[in-house]
Order: sequence, then structure tokens, then C-alpha cells
Amino acid sequence: MQVFEAVRTVLAIRSYKPESIPPATVRKILEAGRLTASSMNLQPWHFIAVESREDLRALGEMAATGPYIAEAGFAVAVATEPTKYSESDAGRAIQSMILTAWEEGIVSNWVGFYGLDDAAEYLGIPDEMDLLAIIPFGYSESATSGGHKKRKPFSDVVHKGRFGKRFEE
Amino acid sequence: MQVFEAVRTVLAIRSYKPESIPPATVRKILEAGRLTASSMNLQPWHFIAVESREDLRALGEMAATGPYIAEAGFAVAVATEPTKYSESDAGRAIQSMILTAWEEGIVSNWVGFYGLDDAAEYLGIPDEMDLLAIIPFGYSESATSGGHKKRKPFSDVVHKGRFGKRFEE
Repeated sequence: MQVFEAVRTVLAIRSYKPESIPPATVRKILEAGRLTASSMNLQPWHFIAVESREDLRALGEMAATGPYIAEAGFAVAVATEPTKYSESDAGRAIQSMILTAWEEGIVSNWVGFYGLDDAAEYLGIPDEMDLLAIIPFGYSESATSGGHKKRKPFSDVVHKGRFGKRFEE
Repeated sequence: MQVFEAVRTVLAIRSYKPESIPPATVRKILEAGRLTASSMNLQPWHFIAVESREDLRALGEMAATGPYIAEAGFAVAVATEPTKYSESDAGRAIQSMILTAWEEGIVSNWVGFYGLDDAAEYLGIPDEMDLLAIIPFGYSESATSGGHKKRKPFSDVVHKGRFGKRFEE
């Protein structure tokens, strides 16, 4: 799949067939994260691949906004070593993984907010790191044609030369 | 270009031919940012497209780590409305833009750190927002075969099930 096509069509999906994902595909998604660029090439991240159903269920119970982690084919918990740009660096790595998964027909969603402290403890993440997100990946239960996104209009978020100056469309 | 191939090969490049980029391509790169997913779909971002040589030179003088902005075909200044995940959301949008540009044969680099306060003032970014990065885009001066990245080994950043448990390769 072409890059822009993936960006345009990728959807955040919260239900998955309880079907395992081929090891080579899991590996490819993790590689997409690892290979991503970061500020000063610090690579301030760790990717914990969670594949056992028991662990996925446990994380689904802890993450208040992500009970559907329980049904994922696998999940990646992304922990960061705090640096000036670690959150945006990890955001980039997660985007690389989500787009790579989409190309492989695999859907995902970013799980953040409540319960991540418990998940971090469960996963043995060192205290000096932050668990930024858990990303469940799986095959979609429903058809995903993609591309129907609710986004602010182009002219609301894109400016030309100066903030507030309209970018002619 | 396939998604994973783009992730694998994309390079951060700091010198550009002073050549303009077709308007449709500029638009496509900005669309890649706009269409990116964000926490609670808040889209806490603004993209200021800078195309005039005068402005590019001015930003190159202000951004201590990015004098090469002066030579870019254009640049995108990314400002965020601070939210819990605004930095990682913006990181995702920037990754979408950088990968989309790479697919179009256009290279880029993330400019952060020093001088961004001056740049934010120059660009008229409201005080309540943060200028996270300036991303210059351009055609590369040199050949960019891509794919030679210095990254930590897979086993250093990827774990299986628990932090510190080796992911068998």
C-alpha cells in the first residue's frame, strides 16, 4: 500500500478477531517502531510485545479505556525514557507501527489514559520510564474500507506563512 | 512506495536543492498531517506552511540547530494546543508528513530545541500554543538510497511479555 493511501485510509478500530498474527508480521510491525527516527537519535523507547491471551486479558482489565486489548492478536506496550522529545519520538514510532500494520491488513488503536500505571507494574517496566500507550493489533471483525475520518477542515489547521493567514485551497 | 519500505528507508537529510515543490505535493504533505489520528480526536495541532525564501531564511537564522531551513523547498512549523497527548499526537502527524514526503522523493528533518520561541513569535503563533518543531522539506542535494540507519539492536528495545524478557529473533 502506498504511504499516503495508508495515512488517508487507516482507521482506529476497537474490536478484533481473536486470531493470532503471523510471527513475521509481528516482527515487521516491531521493526517499524525500532527503525523510526528520533530526536538526536536517542531512541528513547522500549516495545513490549504482549502475545499471551492471559496477559492481553490482564491488560484489558487494567486499561480503563481499552478493554478490547483482551481480544487483540497481540499488543505493543510502548515505554519511554523521559527526554525532551520522548513523547513525540514515541508518537512517531507508534505511527510507523500503525501504518505498517494497516498495510498488512491489521487494525489497531492507541490506548492511553487510566490504568497504565498498573499495566506498567504488571509488565515490569522500570520506575524511571513512562508507559505512554498500549497498542492492540488484530484482524478486524468488520469490513474496514477506510477513509471516512472526522477531521477539522484543512483551512482550520493549515496556515500559510503566518498563523491565521489562510492557505488558499 | 510501500509503507514499511518507506519506514525502513526514510532518511533525515539536512541539505536541499533550493527548488520549489509543486503545490499539489505541498498540499498532499499537509493533508497527511491533518488526516492523522490523535487522542480523543482532538487534533491539537496547527501546521504553518512556510514557502517564501525570506521567511525560510529568517527561520533558519532563528533555529540554532536548523540553519538549513533557509534552503528548503518549504517548511512546516507544527504548533500544538497543550493536551495530555499533544506532543505524541503531533509526533504522529509529523511522521505521516515525513513518510508521505519521502514517497514523493522529498527529504526532511525535524528541527527542534533552541530558537523556537523566536520562531513562534515570528510566525504569530498564539502564546497558549507551543511550537514543537519546524520540518523543512526539499529535494535532496545528494543521492539518497536510504536504509542505512544507526539504531539500537532489536533485542535492546523489544521485549516479550515483560520488560527485560528477550524477544527471540
